[in-house]
Amino acid sequence: MQLIKEYVEQNKERLLEELFALLRFPSVSADPKYKPEVLKTAEFVADKLRESGADHVEVCQTAGYPIVYGEKIIDSSKPTVLVYGHYDVQPPDPLELWKTPPFEPTVRDGKIYARGACDDKGQFYMHVKAFELMIQTNTLPCNIKFMIEGEEEVGSNNLGIFVKQNKNRLKADVVLISDTSMISMENPSLETGLRGLSYLEVEVTGPNRDLHSGVYGGAVANPATILAKMIASLHDENNHVAIPGFYDKVIELTNAERNAINEAPYSETEYKKDLEVEELWGEKGYSTLERTGTRPTLEVNGIWGGYIGEGAKTVLPSKAFAKISMRLVPNQVSDEITKLFTDHFEKIAPASVKVKVTPHHGGEPVVTPTDSIAYKAAQKAIKESFGKDPIPTRGGGSIPIVALFEAELGIKTVLMGFGLDSDALHSPNEKYDIFNYYKGIETIPLFHKYFAELSV
Amino acid sequence: MQLIKEYVEQNKERLLEELFALLRFPSVSADPKYKPEVLKTAEFVADKLRESGADHVEVCQTAGYPIVYGEKIIDSSKPTVLVYGHYDVQPPDPLELWKTPPFEPTVRDGKIYARGACDDKGQFYMHVKAFELMIQTNTLPCNIKFMIEGEEEVGSNNLGIFVKQNKNRLKADVVLISDTSMISMENPSLETGLRGLSYLEVEVTGPNRDLHSGVYGGAVANPATILAKMIASLHDENNHVAIPGFYDKVIELTNAERNAINEAPYSETEYKKDLEVEELWGEKGYSTLERTGTRPTLEVNGIWGGYIGEGAKTVLPSKAFAKISMRLVPNQVSDEITKLFTDHFEKIAPASVKVKVTPHHGGEPVVTPTDSIAYKAAQKAIKESFGKDPIPTRGGGSIPIVALFEAELGIKTVLMGFGLDSDALHSPNEKYDIFNYYKGIETIPLFHKYFAELSV
Repeated sequence: MQLIKEYVEQNKERLLEELFALLRFPSVSADPKYKPEVLKTAEFVADKLRESGADHVEVCQTAGYPIVYGEKIIDSSKPTVLVYGHYDVQPPDPLELWKTPPFEPTVRDGKIYARGACDDKGQFYMHVKAFELMIQTNTLPCNIKFMIEGEEEVGSNNLGIFVKQNKNRLKADVVLISDTSMISMENPSLETGLRGLSYLEVEVTGPNRDLHSGVYGGAVANPATILAKMIASLHDENNHVAIPGFYDKVIELTNAERNAINEAPYSETEYKKDLEVEELWGEKGYSTLERTGTRPTLEVNGIWGGYIGEGAKTVLPSKAFAKISMRLVPNQVSDEITKLFTDHFEKIAPASVKVKVTPHHGGEPVVTPTDSIAYKAAQKAIKESFGKDPIPTRGGGSIPIVALFEAELGIKTVLMGFGLDSDALHSPNEKYDIFNYYKGIETIPLFHKYFAELSV
Repeated sequence: MQLIKEYVEQNKERLLEELFALLRFPSVSADPKYKPEVLKTAEFVADKLRESGADHVEVCQTAGYPIVYGEKIIDSSKPTVLVYGHYDVQPPDPLELWKTPPFEPTVRDGKIYARGACDDKGQFYMHVKAFELMIQTNTLPCNIKFMIEGEEEVGSNNLGIFVKQNKNRLKADVVLISDTSMISMENPSLETGLRGLSYLEVEVTGPNRDLHSGVYGGAVANPATILAKMIASLHDENNHVAIPGFYDKVIELTNAERNAINEAPYSETEYKKDLEVEELWGEKGYSTLERTGTRPTLEVNGIWGGYIGEGAKTVLPSKAFAKISMRLVPNQVSDEITKLFTDHFEKIAPASVKVKVTPHHGGEPVVTPTDSIAYKAAQKAIKESFGKDPIPTRGGGSIPIVALFEAELGIKTVLMGFGLDSDALHSPNEKYDIFNYYKGIETIPLFHKYFAELSV
């Protein structure tokens, strides 16, 4: 541990500068206009892997954005850790809400503000630098492989094919991912489950053109009004999702499991204060931690239709749209839920409009074991680094890759995230604490150490 | 009539070219970025009034866009007609739906396609040219005054003040407006009523920032979902507006009145075919003509919130917005309805969100008399020009100025419109038939002739 701390201390400026350089690339995978920048980011990541000591580094082309691969095989008889991360980021909008430019990392009060600071550039880069540390200090105790993709924020559409085609190259004993959060630095935690995802876009069409709302208003179905009514009907009065069959495959947790989840430190007062809301909202009969960690949900991610510019326009719009996503829990299947939604949405559409549902992408929910060697190694690493045992938690987010790995490579994943829920992922002013960045670089080598030891 | 037809025939190219020049000004009053163009349009209108023979032409400054005034007093003992129109237009968006540029008038199949072609440049300019005709042919039978404003599409905010301050200058016996539609050229009609308007914008705020829909989804109220539920609740299952007190002041029409309205030519099949809808929508118990002409309505003119760009963003938005307008019928009062809406909307908002309602503008409903000299003059003019008696109809649109005139100047209005409902007012590809333009220029002098005769 002493050796680790010294190395980080001696290189702290450079370790930060390198991350800043990575954060300056606007690698937004959702919007085609950023394509050249996304491609440059992949090359940058490959260069850094090489500089850090990885072999056979390759920018692997796919039908979409490339996947950066690199490895260090010290002894084929030793265990192998496959590190996964993603170099793409969420769109920065709404831009006007950023205090400083999203792609010009700025430090305020010990925190790095930039799109991707936490999700996931700041977190996957800790692994690249922890790897450098182990190489430079001759302490790498096992084989290590890196797979850093560029399409996580748009559904990892080409990762599945890549994994299928590279099963040998990706052969490993465990997947290690830092793309999740801890409760706090005082209450370190390890996520043991992630929700799946079904993301769709709906289009409701009324008349064939925008109409004068005075001349036609009251006589023709307004697609914005109809869409509102349809969305309103997707939750019942207890905020259960009102899509027939939606909960059919959900496995109710045992009281013991529910109690364990609710033992995690949580203050409703603090939670409400942080979000500045008077009252929380959610499915009746469940706590906030259960709602976000263990229950499937349906959210409107975007809605638009008619005149949304300055001033007033008395128009009855021809079309209205919404982006809607559902988070899934173990045993629910993304394609099945997507079909349930589509059938239901088409069914509830009145004859006065036409609806079109377009699936965007999906991912399967996962639960990671807490009795595996890898999980124990993560526990010990955090215990040593934070001086406290990590609390097991269920994360609300989705990392489709986890289920994919289990299916294709037959290996489990450890979710050792160092972010915080308050890091504003996907929001303006996303941040990552410099403290967490260094803490991660210090903790990761301990994971490898204990994983190698426990694997003997 | 022969003289009139000859004049139009001899000048038809120029009459059209002048209108095209007027249509090329993007005089969008709703969007500040067009301001210089709106101001140029006012100057252009003033020049044309002068060229046509008007005296004391003035571009009258207001707190907003100027009002163009001009007059021709031939004999103070003769009756005076005050012509009202507006040179501002609706925003052109969605631009991508225009077949040809909105501000480059293009003729296809005998129709002029351009923003403002019918509403209201094409229609008010008929009066300027009919005036020129009467001057050139020495047939002006009465005094005439012009008042062409530039804020009709944003609620005529400064017109009221102007009218109050210029009661003497505006003194007249009747107001003549062409800013409405006829059933068809085969079924000429005169509007005898207009709906009022209350236009508002609502803002629903949930959490203080956009959130990751995986980390927070299901635990925090989503303002887009809440807004949808609130909008959905504004109409009951029979599509009555569900705002307490909304209908209190509405005077139910007598069966005789309802029958008269339903006698107007109307084909539901044609109506649905033109809009390409399977089924119509509206308040239970009323026909389409009653719904648009005699019943108050509530429409969502625009809705937006969250991520509305390319691709997918798993965000739980901080805010959602809607532009909502209500059309009012006689005896309803705009300010009262605005307050009823605001109180109700704030009342139904759950504690998990904050709502803000901002009134945009309003206008009072009006009914014009059908037994006045002016109405009879319009009837005779149309009978002579179209060879058919006009059918009295109730228009769904709003022209706040009509009520204002009655209140401030104590004079009634005649709504002699030459547009068609299919002219796509406020929509992409707005059009105006060249035939209607010339027909209007031919009919207007007849109105003045009969109004002068009947006033003796």
